[in-house]
Amino acid sequence: MPRYKLTIEYDGGPFVGWQRQKNGRSVQEAIEQATSAFSGERVTVKGAGRTDAGVHALGQVAHVDLARTWPAETVRDAVNAHLRPEPVSILSVEPVTDDFDSRFSARKRHYLYRIIDRRAPLALDRARAWSVPIRLDADAMHSAAQSLVGKHDFTTFRAAECQAKSPIKTLDRLDVSRQSDEVVIRASARSFLHNQVRSMVGTLKKVGEGRWSAAEVSAALAARDRARSGPVAPAHGLYLLAVDYSPAE
Amino acid sequence: MPRYKLTIEYDGGPFVGWQRQKNGRSVQEAIEQATSAFSGERVTVKGAGRTDAGVHALGQVAHVDLARTWPAETVRDAVNAHLRPEPVSILSVEPVTDDFDSRFSARKRHYLYRIIDRRAPLALDRARAWSVPIRLDADAMHSAAQSLVGKHDFTTFRAAECQAKSPIKTLDRLDVSRQSDEVVIRASARSFLHNQVRSMVGTLKKVGEGRWSAAEVSAALAARDRARSGPVAPAHGLYLLAVDYSPAE
Repeated sequence: MPRYKLTIEYDGGPFVGWQRQKNGRSVQEAIEQATSAFSGERVTVKGAGRTDAGVHALGQVAHVDLARTWPAETVRDAVNAHLRPEPVSILSVEPVTDDFDSRFSARKRHYLYRIIDRRAPLALDRARAWSVPIRLDADAMHSAAQSLVGKHDFTTFRAAECQAKSPIKTLDRLDVSRQSDEVVIRASARSFLHNQVRSMVGTLKKVGEGRWSAAEVSAALAARDRARSGPVAPAHGLYLLAVDYSPAE
Repeated sequence: MPRYKLTIEYDGGPFVGWQRQKNGRSVQEAIEQATSAFSGERVTVKGAGRTDAGVHALGQVAHVDLARTWPAETVRDAVNAHLRPEPVSILSVEPVTDDFDSRFSARKRHYLYRIIDRRAPLALDRARAWSVPIRLDADAMHSAAQSLVGKHDFTTFRAAECQAKSPIKTLDRLDVSRQSDEVVIRASARSFLHNQVRSMVGTLKKVGEGRWSAAEVSAALAARDRARSGPVAPAHGLYLLAVDYSPAE
């Protein structure tokens, strides 16, 4: 069966998350139903990142097998037409070989976390960023973040319900920068533990407020103890930005 | 009575526009009620720009007179607390002199119009930008826009219900630029006619699609005839960005 790679944007707000669940509408289910409505067959859409309820995507990647060979643009436009009015958009579709798996072939995942750092509440970005009224020291956050980069046991920053076999991950990048009132955190790794990015962001916020030192962040990581993490940052500030595959894919 | 200058952000989506109206909730009414709830007096809040239903603001300016002298931060925080949960935020409050009038003292108004120019529908920016699936030539739009800059009779780009005394306005800036999939139009003038920015954007889109030439835009302006304007671009792509006052204010 021909396989297609989908690149997807969505507003995570109205969904229970990427993954199909019994307790509400998921992004996966929305795309599966739209694809079925177009192709007339039962389909399973497999995603690269299982984003939680409320988490957005600018470049989630998934794959789907269809019985027929279609022009990629036809699949994109037809699935988008059936997705309406849900806030999910198939940005592009590419034919791929059978050995492409959106989840297991992924070489790197990139996440973005947006904090709007001002006293006034958010009007336009209310469901799109974390509103933090205290002035954050983004430079201190960036410095502290560097102790998390590299290969570590990330148990401290792992959700209790995380299903990963090992808590050892290699974090390739954790950059914090400020552009006027906005503090942006960019995280890249081959894969992340459940809640890892949001737990790291919640911890770095403590540093930004001057409540924790960089040394305390290092010590929290070394402790391999969830109780040592800062609070998990809210879902609506997090974006799955892109997923990288090897050039052939 | 002490006068305060308010700088305001809002999501125009749920409102009938800035101005108080009988047929629905306005931003002005929301701020007046929140201010009254805080100060215990009847107030009138006067805005610099009467944005239409659906138009957003990143920096609307208004003024209000209160019976008492309050620290500016107290006014900001208290009005914001009473505005909750409406998507309106008072970004800053400054005490001003009695001769400051948000509308009549304004020296320049700056608007931004966002077009997302891609085949796929919008998920995250659905209510924040105009979705145009045809590839636009932003350079051609920018060139054509330059014939509108300067002092002209803008009757062609004026709404039938416009209340301005004269259709003659001086447009200081009309820039079109592309950043990846986004085409952004920036317009600045001391004041604008009703629907002027959206009418100009709708006209420039015709140029971007290759359907109108720059010469046709000039001819449309010269005709001083509403029927010669392109369609009025949708409200949800427009943002009142900022209002300038003389340095003393």
